Parts: sequence; C-alpha cells; structure tokens
Amino acid sequence: MITSPHNEQLKTIRKLQAKRHRERTGLFAAEGEDLVDAAAAAGWSPEAVLRSAVAGVTPPERGTPHTYVEPELLDAVSSLGSGTRAIGVYRQRFSRPGGSLSVYLDGVGDPGNVGAVIRAAHALCDGPVVLGPGCADPYSPKAVRASMGSVFARPPAQAAFNELSGARVALDPAASATLADVEPAPPLVLCLGAEREGLRPEVLKAANACARIPVRADGPESLGVAAAAAIALYEAATRMAAS
Amino acid sequence: MITSPHNEQLKTIRKLQAKRHRERTGLFAAEGEDLVDAAAAAGWSPEAVLRSAVAGVTPPERGTPHTYVEPELLDAVSSLGSGTRAIGVYRQRFSRPGGSLSVYLDGVGDPGNVGAVIRAAHALCDGPVVLGPGCADPYSPKAVRASMGSVFARPPAQAAFNELSGARVALDPAASATLADVEPAPPLVLCLGAEREGLRPEVLKAANACARIPVRADGPESLGVAAAAAIALYEAATRMAAS
Repeated sequence: MITSPHNEQLKTIRKLQAKRHRERTGLFAAEGEDLVDAAAAAGWSPEAVLRSAVAGVTPPERGTPHTYVEPELLDAVSSLGSGTRAIGVYRQRFSRPGGSLSVYLDGVGDPGNVGAVIRAAHALCDGPVVLGPGCADPYSPKAVRASMGSVFARPPAQAAFNELSGARVALDPAASATLADVEPAPPLVLCLGAEREGLRPEVLKAANACARIPVRADGPESLGVAAAAAIALYEAATRMAAS
Repeated sequence: MITSPHNEQLKTIRKLQAKRHRERTGLFAAEGEDLVDAAAAAGWSPEAVLRSAVAGVTPPERGTPHTYVEPELLDAVSSLGSGTRAIGVYRQRFSRPGGSLSVYLDGVGDPGNVGAVIRAAHALCDGPVVLGPGCADPYSPKAVRASMGSVFARPPAQAAFNELSGARVALDPAASATLADVEPAPPLVLCLGAEREGLRPEVLKAANACARIPVRADGPESLGVAAAAAIALYEAATRMAAS
C-alpha cells in the first residue's frame, strides 16, 4: 500500500502527463479502470498498475499484479481528478502502416480528435491510424481516454505521407468528386488534415484522388475531423465489403 | 473598460458556468472570438459582448456593441482560461422538432458529444437535434464549444421520444437490419442513446425501425455517439438525396 506522495511510481505517473517525459521513457499512463481493463483485454502487460484503496471496495482479482494507493494520492497524479480508481503504466507501441483500409492524419493537433479517430478506425477498418507530422501524441492522457482503449487493440502508426503505399485518397471539401465516386479498391488510405486548415497543398497534390463528403450549403464551415473520418471509413468499408 | 472583478457583467458570465444559473436566467455564454463571430453570422443579438483589451490589438469594428475588459479579468471568468479574447452572453433559443431528417438524443449526458452531434446535424440534415431526457445542457460552455458555433445556426429542440412525428429509427448495435436497409422516406428521425447503455428498452420498442451500423467483430465495444450520429446522418442524407 502506497501512502507517500513521494513514491517513485506515483512520481512517474505524474511526470508521464508531460509529452517530454513520455518521449524520454517510451512509457504512458492509462487512467481509469475501463482503460486498464481494455489494456488487459488486448493482452498488454503493464509496467505497473496502481489501484485506489477505496474503503469497502474489493476489486476483482485480475491477472495483472497491482499495488494499492491511498485514494487521494492517486487522484492527485491523475488528470481525471477525484475518484480515479486505477492507473496503469505501459510501454508505447506503434504499428506499421498497412491494411486494406486505413487512415492517415496530417497536422491533427487535438488529442481528443486523434483518440476519437483511433476508436472509429478500430470499429470500421483493419489498418491502423497513421500519424503524420503535426499530430497530437496518441499516448497523452486525453488521447488515450478519447480512444476509449482502442489504442491498445489497435496501436497507431507513425509515417510521412510519402511513405504510404496504396491508393491515398485525400479528404478535401473543395474536391469535385465525392467519396462515393472513389473506387473502393484495397489498399486504400483515407487522408485527413487539421480541423480548419485541411490537408497541406503538397499532400493534396501528391494524393491519388481527392474527394469530399457532401454537406449542406447552409452548413458549418467544416465537419469535425473525427466525424469526417468516421463517415469516410464507413463509406469506404461498406463499399469495399459490397464489391 | 472594465477593470474591476466585481463588475456585474463579469459576475454574470462566471455564474453562467453553472447550469442552475443558465436555467434561471435563460442565458448562456459563448467563449472565444470564433463563437462570438458565429453568433453574429447567424444573426443573434447578444445581451453583452466583452472583449479582452489586449495591448496593441485593435479588433475590427463589428456591428455588435462590446465592452473592453482587462485581459486577466476576462480569463478569470472563462472556462477556456488564459488568452480568452471575447465572451458573448446570449438568450437561449430552442427550435421545434421537424425537418425531413433530424436526430433525437436520449440520455446523452456528455456535453462534448451533444455539441458534436449538433455540429454534424448542421452539416448533414435540415432538422434540429432533439434532446430527450438525460441529455447534457446544449448551452454549457463545453457543448457550445464542441458545436463550433452550430448551436447558433441550428438551435436544438427539446422533446420526449413519443412527441416526435415521422419514422423514428433507433440506432441499436443489436439490431438485425443495418442502416442501409432502412427506407429513406422523410420525415425521418435518427434516434441515439447514451455511449454505453444505448437507447432505453421502451424507446427501442416504440421505434418504427431499429438498425445498426455495421462494425468489425474485432472492434471496440461501441462506436462513440458522435461518430455514430455522423455516420447515420450521412447514410440517410445521401440516400434521401438519391431517391
């Protein structure tokens, strides 16, 4: 039972909130019982699991060894704040680009969006989410939380646009073709850019095709990147399955 | 120029972070220059607009009158924190259910999801997002932010499931039919429930049809509600336009 805020494991978890420390150590923290469970379900071995020693609660015995911590000490190192039940520390993993259908993100700096796209890709395609330059760290607490544990089942890849193979289809609101016009031949990589700026001109130019999601003329300036990725994955996956 | 933290307008904005105060007054605050601009673009007249008196920055003259505030005072009442440039106070509006295609949410308690669905509906359908029991307040700072201003262009409605007219299609991962099996005849209301629990049994039972979004067997437990709404709206809107 950990009762000191100076405990080394607690200090590690607190430091892992900083990207610099995640990069230096190659580790990350998953905050919350649901995420620790998702890691176990995906077969990941934690470096450590700390569980809140809540009075009267006996957590189920799990295969992974864990250490109990005084609740307020666990809360203090968690970005979830009060009531955090468990935090696991894991070694980061990255997949290789591939699959018959996958997603490439370029300059998507919001960790919530990166996590949401990882979750949608886990539901809808067989390839990983490939993170290009300027993307948020998929192993930040916010991205891991937004992925709802899909980072464990489907670790993202890291690559530049020109390292991708297959047909690279750039999502671009200014394209004349719509998604439904795109030949759903695998391997297909759906490419999306930042929320407002969209994809860089060099990516649009190098893409094998550009396509837009049909939206209303009186609609917002843009769809969110997470919504756009979900729609594009759904459209491509459905048509691939039917062809 | 407001230089006192005891200014009444600042106090009002701070209080509007609490749902209780929003309900009592019927007002809400939109934090950030982009949202204040979205309100003006949608023709909303603010009750007040406060702008940060950042040294050296002369904001463009706008039609809406505004008051300057010392930057740190504006930051202090904003949930965005440091660097807030503008906050507008508005009177809440609600639409009536309707349109050839719309969305009904039941028990969606996360304000980020409510805002994201309002944004997706603004892009993809002509009807409002109808909020049923247990939904997050669409006028909380987090929901307004997640809507990216679409609450102004397309204010949500509030109604119970049995008050809706038209074909009510319940999104349900356990349904045997898929979305593509649903007759895209207007008026159509796509109904979605909470992130994990899904729709309540009485809603599933009363719906005119139940349908699922095809997902991978090795995928996550569920799609996020915002991703599911975006996909369902896209599928229904595309097929309605083609029929």
